[in-house]
This record gives sequence, C-alpha cells and structure tokens, in this order.
Amino acid sequence: MNTEPITRIGMLVFPMMTSLDILGPFEVLARAPSCHAELVWKDRNPLKGDTGLTIVPDRGFADAPQYDVIVVPGGPGQTALMEDAEVIQFLREQAAGAELVTSVCTGSLLLAAAGLLQGKKATCHWLSIDQLPIFGVEAVADRVVVDGDRITGAGVTSGLDFAFTVLAAIRGQETAKALQLMLEYDPAPPFDSGHPRVASADLVEKVRHAADSMIRERRAVSMRVAQCTVAT
Amino acid sequence: MNTEPITRIGMLVFPMMTSLDILGPFEVLARAPSCHAELVWKDRNPLKGDTGLTIVPDRGFADAPQYDVIVVPGGPGQTALMEDAEVIQFLREQAAGAELVTSVCTGSLLLAAAGLLQGKKATCHWLSIDQLPIFGVEAVADRVVVDGDRITGAGVTSGLDFAFTVLAAIRGQETAKALQLMLEYDPAPPFDSGHPRVASADLVEKVRHAADSMIRERRAVSMRVAQCTVAT
Repeated sequence: MNTEPITRIGMLVFPMMTSLDILGPFEVLARAPSCHAELVWKDRNPLKGDTGLTIVPDRGFADAPQYDVIVVPGGPGQTALMEDAEVIQFLREQAAGAELVTSVCTGSLLLAAAGLLQGKKATCHWLSIDQLPIFGVEAVADRVVVDGDRITGAGVTSGLDFAFTVLAAIRGQETAKALQLMLEYDPAPPFDSGHPRVASADLVEKVRHAADSMIRERRAVSMRVAQCTVAT
Repeated sequence: MNTEPITRIGMLVFPMMTSLDILGPFEVLARAPSCHAELVWKDRNPLKGDTGLTIVPDRGFADAPQYDVIVVPGGPGQTALMEDAEVIQFLREQAAGAELVTSVCTGSLLLAAAGLLQGKKATCHWLSIDQLPIFGVEAVADRVVVDGDRITGAGVTSGLDFAFTVLAAIRGQETAKALQLMLEYDPAPPFDSGHPRVASADLVEKVRHAADSMIRERRAVSMRVAQCTVAT
C-alpha cells in the first residue's frame, strides 16, 4: 500500500491567460507520482485563453483545498487580475499554507501584486520583467529562478523547464528525469530566436512594438497596485 | 486591407489524447498571422486528455471546412482511433485536399493507419517509432521530419519544434522567429534526460517497462490495421 502523502498542486487558470503558461507545466505535474494537479478558478465554467482555447477548470475557489504547490500563469488576462480582490485574496490565503508558491511568465507580476514576492528574486516574460522591481522584487533574467520556496519561470515556453525544476524539488531528480524521457523533452528549436539575447535587434524592436499597448497598460496597473501593496 | 488568404489549420483532438501534443502546436499556430487554427473532433462536447485536462473542441467533423493544414496528436487514445472508421475517413478526406498533413507523437501512427504516410519518411514518440514500418513508413528518429507535404514530430514536447517548422513552411522564417521570441522559446532543460540517446540505460529500461502494456496493445492494433491498409 502506498502511504506517501499526496502533494496537491493548484494551478490557476483565468480568461485571457496564455494557455501554454499553465498547460505545459500541467502536462508534467499531472503525471507526477503521488501528486494531484488540478486547474482552479473562481468557478467551473469553461473559459478561453488568449488564443481562443477553451478549457474547463477542475475546481472553483470556494471548494479548493489548501494546496501544497500553487502555480500562477500569465498572459494578457493577468493585468486585470492584479486588481481583482477575490483573486488576490485566494492567492494570499493559499500562499500562507503552501510549501511552494510559483509562477510562469507574467504570473510573477500577479504574485508580486499579491505581495508574495517582495524582497525575493524572480523572473518573468522578457517584455515585462522590468516591472518586477515596481513591487520590490529583485528581477533576475534567468529562465527559471529559485529563491527558497518561490520558483518562477520566464516567458510562456519556460514553463517546461520550470515544471521539471518544480518536479525535482517535490519528487526528486530521478522522477523528473523519468518524466522528461517519457515526454521526450529534448528540445531542438529550428531557429535561434527565442530571447532578445539571440534574436536580431530588428526583430526584438518589432515584437516590442507589437506588444507596446499591452505592456503599457500592464505597467500602469502595476504602478497603481504597487502603491498599495508595497505600502502594506 | 489585408487580402492574404487565410490558412485554415485543423487540429484533431480526442479523448485520452496527450494534450500537450496538440496544445503546444496550437499555442504557436493560433497566433500566426493570416491563419485560423481550431480544434476539431466528432462533436463539440468537452473531452478529457490522458492527464484529465478538459478542453472543448471548436468544431465537429460534420461542419469542418476543408483545412489547408491538418495536425494529428497522439497519446493512449490514439490506439483505438486506428480502427475508428469515422476518424479514418475524416483524415483521408481532409488529407486529399490539404496542403500539409502533419502529426506529433503517435499521431503519425494514426496517419499511417489511414494510409497517409506509406512510402514516406516520418517520426514518432521514441517508444513507438518502431511501429511505423508496420505500415510501410520509413522511420527516421529525428525530432522533426519533413518529407514533402508530410511533417511529423517525435514525442510530446517535440510539438514546439514541429510547430515552428510548420509555421516557417506556411508563413516564412521571419514570422516563425518573431513568434519564437514572443513565446520566449529558448529552452534550457534542467536535466539532460529527454531521449534514450542521453538518458541512463536504467531509466530507459524503467520507462519502457512502465509503458509496456500500452505499447503492446498499440502494436497489436497496428499489426491488425496494417493488414488492411497496406493491402489497399
């Protein structure tokens, strides 16, 4: 009989999230032995990510258990949630009892807005990482940043590197390596353009320009929210 | 006014699929300019992948348009579909009018079962790639294999490398590189264990053993189906 306690992993989902931020890690963590991963939101109605993908949350906030691990994704929908009292309260309450509080992409700004990353090192999508210091967070432009019980991943696809890091932390390296093999995670991008460090300057400028209004709006909300969060 | 014709991308989903096989590529292809990507299945009822993730298909077979690109994922649910006449017919009809017929993971076995890869080079998840020759397909153990209008990806997470390859084929390298930057696809796995080539022999054996009954069942069905497909 297996008496190893189950690790409960609560993975936030929300309208207009960047779906892969959370579904990449879900693919890994939902397969982990003696773990139960589930997608949690205010209610269980189907919701759409920012590409139009429709998923159905597994659990509503009201009947969520205390999770051992919290994972928060990002995406355009994250901006409004920084000022959503119900979401901020849920994250604070969960974080108080969780062993690991984690995020992918601009999910770290949501954790920061909830006051859960102050004084910590964290990462974020490259387009928004400069907003972390607004909340008193030390921005570290690595793909995955571990600072004690806080683990954060950079943009979108970093969620896979993040997930194997989290899995190793909760179930050990051997388990992480076995799942890496099962999921054939042996990446070979056909182009070398996945970070401003390696992409052409022109392309970086073009992507910055295309995202400009979204980033400005996020920054305005970050500034407004930080006045309250950092003060408390 | 943008008069560039829309490229319609039909991405198969099914119960007990490995969700990331298709949702990784969806994250990329749904963001591509002048493309419309959608998830298609027999009906639009919510369905669960093999980790329990619930998604809602965008389109039923009956009102699917002719797609320009077809993408087929794999996973445990793929095995039964090799003998599902409705699915095989849908794939054959779509493939006849599509510009690109593609797959990730054991989706290539489903394409093969539909007679759509005979005499072609293709790849598959490392645990099942040796089943491709059963259908007269030339197995090539690369992460992404392009053979004319057939593009196939290896196991699960190869879907990202696959997606940028497909995107470059339909929209050019600059578009693929811009989306790679936006999605920060600059992978850095914390371990080097994503393929039998690099994983420890013990671990390969362990993963093979754990998957043994699923692989045997898949092989039995592949053998049975191939007797009909290859003969026609």
